[in-house]
This record gives sequence, structure tokens and C-alpha cells, in this order.
Amino acid sequence: MINKVTINKSRLKLNCDMGESFGLWSMGMDEDVMPWVDMANIACGFHASDPDIMAKTLLLAKQHDVMVGAHPSYQDLQGFGRRSIPLSDDEITHCVIYQVGALVAMARMYDCKVEYIKPHGALYNDMMSNESIFVAILAAAENFGLPVMILAGVNNNRYLDLADQFNVPLLFEAFADRAYQDNGLLLPRSHPKAVHHLQDDIYHQVIQLAQYGSITSLNGAKIMLEADTICVHGDNADSIAMVQRISQGLKSLGG
Amino acid sequence: MINKVTINKSRLKLNCDMGESFGLWSMGMDEDVMPWVDMANIACGFHASDPDIMAKTLLLAKQHDVMVGAHPSYQDLQGFGRRSIPLSDDEITHCVIYQVGALVAMARMYDCKVEYIKPHGALYNDMMSNESIFVAILAAAENFGLPVMILAGVNNNRYLDLADQFNVPLLFEAFADRAYQDNGLLLPRSHPKAVHHLQDDIYHQVIQLAQYGSITSLNGAKIMLEADTICVHGDNADSIAMVQRISQGLKSLGG
Amino acid sequence: MINKVTINKSRLKLNCDMGESFGLWSMGMDEDVMPWVDMANIACGFHASDPDIMAKTLLLAKQHDVMVGAHPSYQDLQGFGRRSIPLSDDEITHCVIYQVGALVAMARMYDCKVEYIKPHGALYNDMMSNESIFVAILAAAENFGLPVMILAGVNNNRYLDLADQFNVPLLFEAFADRAYQDNGLLLPRSHPKAVHHLQDDIYHQVIQLAQYGSITSLNGAKIMLEADTICVHGDNADSIAMVQRISQGLKSLGG
Amino acid sequence: MINKVTINKSRLKLNCDMGESFGLWSMGMDEDVMPWVDMANIACGFHASDPDIMAKTLLLAKQHDVMVGAHPSYQDLQGFGRRSIPLSDDEITHCVIYQVGALVAMARMYDCKVEYIKPHGALYNDMMSNESIFVAILAAAENFGLPVMILAGVNNNRYLDLADQFNVPLLFEAFADRAYQDNGLLLPRSHPKAVHHLQDDIYHQVIQLAQYGSITSLNGAKIMLEADTICVHGDNADSIAMVQRISQGLKSLGG
Repeated sequence: MINKVTINKSRLKLNCDMGESFGLWSMGMDEDVMPWVDMANIACGFHASDPDIMAKTLLLAKQHDVMVGAHPSYQDLQGFGRRSIPLSDDEITHCVIYQVGALVAMARMYDCKVEYIKPHGALYNDMMSNESIFVAILAAAENFGLPVMILAGVNNNRYLDLADQFNVPLLFEAFADRAYQDNGLLLPRSHPKAVHHLQDDIYHQVIQLAQYGSITSLNGAKIMLEADTICVHGDNADSIAMVQRISQGLKSLGG
Repeated sequence: MINKVTINKSRLKLNCDMGESFGLWSMGMDEDVMPWVDMANIACGFHASDPDIMAKTLLLAKQHDVMVGAHPSYQDLQGFGRRSIPLSDDEITHCVIYQVGALVAMARMYDCKVEYIKPHGALYNDMMSNESIFVAILAAAENFGLPVMILAGVNNNRYLDLADQFNVPLLFEAFADRAYQDNGLLLPRSHPKAVHHLQDDIYHQVIQLAQYGSITSLNGAKIMLEADTICVHGDNADSIAMVQRISQGLKSLGG
Repeated sequence: MINKVTINKSRLKLNCDMGESFGLWSMGMDEDVMPWVDMANIACGFHASDPDIMAKTLLLAKQHDVMVGAHPSYQDLQGFGRRSIPLSDDEITHCVIYQVGALVAMARMYDCKVEYIKPHGALYNDMMSNESIFVAILAAAENFGLPVMILAGVNNNRYLDLADQFNVPLLFEAFADRAYQDNGLLLPRSHPKAVHHLQDDIYHQVIQLAQYGSITSLNGAKIMLEADTICVHGDNADSIAMVQRISQGLKSLGG
Repeated sequence: MINKVTINKSRLKLNCDMGESFGLWSMGMDEDVMPWVDMANIACGFHASDPDIMAKTLLLAKQHDVMVGAHPSYQDLQGFGRRSIPLSDDEITHCVIYQVGALVAMARMYDCKVEYIKPHGALYNDMMSNESIFVAILAAAENFGLPVMILAGVNNNRYLDLADQFNVPLLFEAFADRAYQDNGLLLPRSHPKAVHHLQDDIYHQVIQLAQYGSITSLNGAKIMLEADTICVHGDNADSIAMVQRISQGLKSLGG
């Protein structure tokens, strides 16, 4: 059985997208959120970031002893990687190798290490819904010997089976602020209740997952999710406060 | 003494810029020239190329057993990397790391190996004339443990001394088709005789360098140049024919 | 009845994509094909071209007294505008206005005039199959008071009705080298017989359309197409020769 | 005498760079500053902005009855147009025509009008120090029949004479927050006192210019500047407050 992720799974880790500024444009409060998370998904220049911001973000992660992941995307600065661009499977593999290779080299320059790959935006969504795109990403991950982070569902085995064929470990993430359907999928963003806005709802969703391995769907059903990590956001003061509360809540559970 | 280049120096090698197509646009006759050269300088996406063309060019080099080098540039597709863009030293280091890292990762995917770095266009010229830019590139090269290819001159020691501080070997190249000044520098392109147009002139410049380690300047002076490699071009049928003649000429010298 | 195209319709015009080079990369034999066509669809910088190439192409069209059209595209240099990028209707309108506005201004600089708009590649295909995208393009065309060139079909009225709502004239084009289905649509490119390769097949398809207003489908059915113009290509020596033959054939028909 | 600017010069106008967001990245508090200024310099997509942000910014200017200018730049998103890119004079003319043409067309779509051109960043600085670049911009401005906004100095005539040759009116601007040298030039940004940080210093520099047509240099010399407009910034809450104070101060002077 190949698929043993290399990270310590004793505690639900917090992962957060980082380094999504570009040139003079700033995005995200990386310096404020970095002390509270475990894993930084660092943009690689295709949907955000540039070589200098990559360097700066790596140094910030290192300073706070945060695990670094590559956050590759379709090449689309104007659309922030949120638009699906039709690529062949080989093109996707090449596009991921290019970006992750660039970050791996930058990390070496600053004595850091890239330890996983989490696709961004439309590429992430396409990977979850299109098996050949998922396989194209696995081929790139195999090249680096790195795990891929994907969305935790009620049936992770379908993805684990494919990943095993490439000797690629998987990391599963759940979302702190997204409502779930009974089938374990996220409620689409178009739904009015797709995103939790109450701080308590977000907090309790995370704590329930940490304590019981379950999430309560919009309809009140209890769904079992095997998740290694929770995706949080560092966009503004409110979300930073939320991340702090979650981080402290998880620590108080032990682990 | 650090500076021992890793390539076999028993014979003057031919190096050629490759993989300079972009998307649907084609440039250079890579398939025709690859069989005749020893070293392929492969573009990394900033002045030309894209992840798919990088993959294809690596495979072509591998098929012909040609040594692969990274050919990083200022980020400038429209200007083909021929325009100097003002960057800080750190920005240059990061820009080179990004590109070389991307190519290194792509090479690993296809069982190739990047073995040196040759900056492109304006970055190459700026490196030769601006010591802090040369040092910024050495810092990037040190990160990969790779040699840097630069222009051979009458006094290579100035560059070797700097490179030794970074444990970076240097490779020196001369040009087959460019006229030289008495001081060992290239005649500027603005000069009407800057480029040799007669096939025999080009051929004899290479053969003289291979046999005697010297080049005859425009004024007829004999200049001693220590060069490891000659830069040739694969742009069109004429230049391919020239490369073949040079390649055969060098082989007939032995080595 | 709004929809009277402003061009002289007495004779089937030849239109050709032009100005699709980019920076140092060359595409198309514009200088060779320009003397033989009536309408030049000039790229506007989003899938190909740049401000300098736009200027040069406008001057070439002017020299040969060829009518100029804007050839806007999704923003996608690497994919040459052949990939559908998901945009809202407003985004499409803005993207077309931006490009056509740039060409209109450049044309004024060189005493030329942009006289129509022909969307390129994926944007052209999406416009034909998606009514809201067609309407978004009409909104942009209305802003310039320019006709839009679209694919002629067996029922042009559906498009004419929409265009009339924006006071936008339409120009209908047929393809010289593409096979048609019985319903008047092009045989998809995936079909092995999608593109005519025999010079005589291409020539006769154009002459039949000019003489009888009809095209013979792959299955031998006669389809009536009301077309104002035929799309030809200037990619290589063969296609230039074909354009010359077509041009002379049409002239010999009179008109 | 050609050079009569078309704007009402009875009162010192406030101009401000606007629409410098890009895709999802936000820059500047355009909605807060727009009500307080007279002229909006709108980015055209080469150093910032995209077609959608251009449309949105034009509508905001229209809502507040603010005069619109085009703010073209070297093509350099990552460097925000602050890096000089070596272009030929023709390339500069084409690059400005492309951008201004795009904005002019977008303005027509939303019933706005572009009324002047103010080059951005490095292009602005290069225009002031390099006559052939200034002339290249005048050639573009003549194409649109629009005035160009440049830096007011102690001798505006040198620029006026050149502009008259192209029938291009000039608008002269001074800076609210920059220290001046005795020769009427700005103190370079590298100087520690280049930028005024005290709100009162900024305010009084504007009021003195409005009342007496003069500015006091760093050394205390009184310099006479003929300026039509003052450049202000809307980057953050402090600068917005400053713009409000300046706007009210100018109004209280009458005019």
C-alpha cells in the first residue's frame, strides 16, 4: 500500500493560500495569517505571484516553520486562475511541472522545501471532476515525488486508487467555511447558503471534523469525511481572527 | 582552484539556441540542426518557448545525445529578450532561478539533465558589461550547482575570479560569424562588418580557433581566445549547411 | 430593413486573416497574399500581433487597396485564440471594444479605415453556437457602427434578426477548403474529410458558390448559401497559389 | 498660436491616477477619491487595468462628472510601468495609439469622452528627459487631436514649441507632495526629502501655487510654475483626506 502521506496526521492541519500578490498589487494578509497555519500553498506565477513574491513568501513560511506546498494553476493572471482553459493532458502535466519546478528551485535557494502540490482554482475543480486531468496532475507530482492535496469526500478511495498507480500520496482537505451536501460534495457557490458567514458555524464545523471526523450537511445529515487538513483564508482582519480561533480550538483539543 | 568545467574540453563544442518557438509560432530549424551540435541552449518561457515546447525540445536533444543547457532571459516575449529591463540584482537572481528550475524539472520528467546555464540576449550582454548582474546570475547558478556559459575574451580571469567565489564553473564561447576587435571584444552589431557573411570566413574563423586557439581581428591582429565552445545558428537552410561544414571540419581535426 | 451591408456585393470577395505575426515570430505570407484578396482580417494583439505589426499590416493593406477588418479574439497568445475562455457577456463586449478600438486608432494614424469586425478562432465558433456571445459582439460592433462577419448558413435570418436589433449589418462568409454537411454546417475538424486537400475541390467549391450560390455537401446534396465572401488562407506557397487561381477564376466570371 | 488647452483654466484642477486595479487585484480607492478630483487619468491595460476595469472606471468618472484622460504606459504589468523599456520612436507612438484607441472606444460605449493623454511612470519620465520620446508621444496625440499632460517647469516653452509643430495642446501639472529643486525640477525620489510627509506642507504647496503661481524649493527659493493642474493620490484614507482638504481649499479661493 503506497498511499501513506508523509505529513504527521496526528492533528488536523490548517492550510492557506499564500503569495497571491503580483508585482505591485497586494492580496491577502500573509504576514498576519502565517503564524497561525501549518501549511502554506504558495502561488507559482501563473494565476498570481512572480519570482520575487515567491522568494518573499518562502522566507515568511520558513520564519514561522510552516510547511510549504506548490499552488500551480492554469496560466491566467487576469482571471486569477478561476477560468478553465482547455488543455490537453500533456499540456496540464507540463504546465504543473513548469510551475512546481520553479518553486522547488526557489525554495532550495532559501533553504526551504516544497512538500506537496495543491492545484489552484479552476484547475483544482477540474481535477476533482475530470479523471484525466487528475491523472495529468499525478504524472507531474510523481516527477517530484510529492503528494497532491485534493478535496476530501465520502469516497476517497477512487482517488487513492489512481494515485497509487503513480506512487503519489494524497492529502485530503475539508473547507471550514463551505456548506456541504448530503453526498459529501460542497454546495455549489451559486447556492445562497454555499458559504458560512457566521463565525460560530465555521468554528464548529472545524471542531466537529477534528473531534468526530464528521461534518453536518445543510440538511442536517452527518457525513463522515477523512480529512488531513482544513482550508482557511487570510484575506482580511475577520478571516485572520477566525483562523486564530480555529488554531487555538484545535490546540485545546490536544494533538 | 574550483573552476574546472565539467564538460570534456578535448574538442571545441558547438552550442546553438533551441526551443525558441512559442505557442503556434515557429522559430529555428531545431530538428535539422540538432544532429550537428553538441550543446542545446533551451529557452525557458521568458523570451520564447512554453512548457510544451520545452518538453519537445528536451526530447529532441535527448534523441541526438546533445547536452542541454538552460537559456534564461528577461521576461519579454514581444521583444524576444533583446531589451534590457531594469531589475535589481535580487530580481535577476530570482528570475533566473525560476526559469532554470522550470527547465530542470521538465528535464527530469523526460530523463534529461540540464548541465549549464547560458543567459540570453540582453541579459547575456548585460552580464558581460555589468559585474553586479554577472554576480546575480552566479548566485542563481550556484543554487543549481551548474556552470555558466559566457563570452570568451582575452582576459577570462576577471570572470573566473568572481565565479570561483560562488564555486561556479564557467564555460567560454566564441562566435563563428562575428568579427572581433583587437581587444578581443566583438565588433558591435552597428558596425557594417560586424557579421561575417561569407561562408568561408565563418568556417576559417572556427577552424583557426580550434587549431591555434586564436582569432584574427578585423584589423588583422591575432588574438588568443580560450574558448570551450562555438556559438552557431540553426535559423535557416544556409546556417544549417554552415553548421554541418563546421561540425565535419572540427571532426576532421581529430578530438 | 436595417441590414444592408455596406460593401459592394456584386462579386464574391476573398477575405484572409492577416497580421498574425508576434514580435520576432512570423506567421503567414502577408506580402504575397495581400495583392490577391479583397478583405484583410487584421489581428489586434490578443491572439497574435502587436502594435507595430498592426501598423505594418495596415500599411500593406492600404498599398494594395484591400478593405480592412478587425479580427479580435479571446486574450490567449500561447493558444493563438483557439481556446474558449469563459467570459461573461459584458467581458466579451469589453474585450472586443478594446481590440477594435486599438485597431481603429492605428488605422486612422495611417489613413486607413476599419470597415468590419470578424471575430477569431474560438470566439468566432462560440459566437456561432451561443446566442448571448453573438449578442455581446453585436453590442461592441454597434459601438463602432461596423458590420460583423459571420458564417453563412442555410438560415441566415436567425442572425440577421438579432443583428437588426443592434443596427449592425452582417457579412456572411463561406469556406473555400472546408467540407459542408447537408444542414449547411461545416463538417467538424475532427472528421477525416473536414478539409479539402485537392486544389481542384477547393477551386470548384468557390466557383460553384459564385455562379450558383450553392455548395455541394459531402453527401452530394446541393445547399444554397447566401455568402458575401470566401475565407482563404495565405499560410504557404501552395495556399498563395490557390488564392491566385481563385481570384483569377472569380474575375473571369465577371463582376 | 496653436497652443490653447481646451480645458477651463480658471482654477487649478486636481488630477489623479485611476483604474489601476488588474483582474482580481485592487489598487487605489477610486470610489472615495473620484468625487473630489477634476481629472481622472485612466490606465489602459499596459501597466494596470483590463477592459472591464476600464469600463467600470469610466462609468465612475462619468457619475461624478470628472474629465477623463488616457494614462498609457510601457507594457509591463509586473513592473507597473515603472521600468524603462527600450523602444524605438515608432514603437512608442504605436504603443500609445493602441492604448489610447482602446480607451477612446470604451469611453464611447459608455457615453464618455477621453479629453487628454497623460503618459504613466517610466514613459512619463522618459518623455520629460528625452525629446525624441516626447515627439513620439506627440505624434500619437495628434492622431487623436488630444492634449498631452506633462510636468510644469520653469521653462515650459521648450515643450510648447515642439507640441505646436504637432498642433498638440499641452497641459502642465505640478505635484502636491513632491519637493522641488531651485531649477524647478522635482527632487529625485532617491533624496530623503523628495516627498512631503507633513499634511500641512502638502496643503500649503498647493495653495501657494494656486494663489501666487509659485512653489518654494527645498532651499527656500521661490520658483514660478505655470501649472494647469495638480497631481494628487487616492491610495489610502490619509491621501483621500488630503485630497478633500486641497479640494475645499481651492474652492474657498474662488474660481
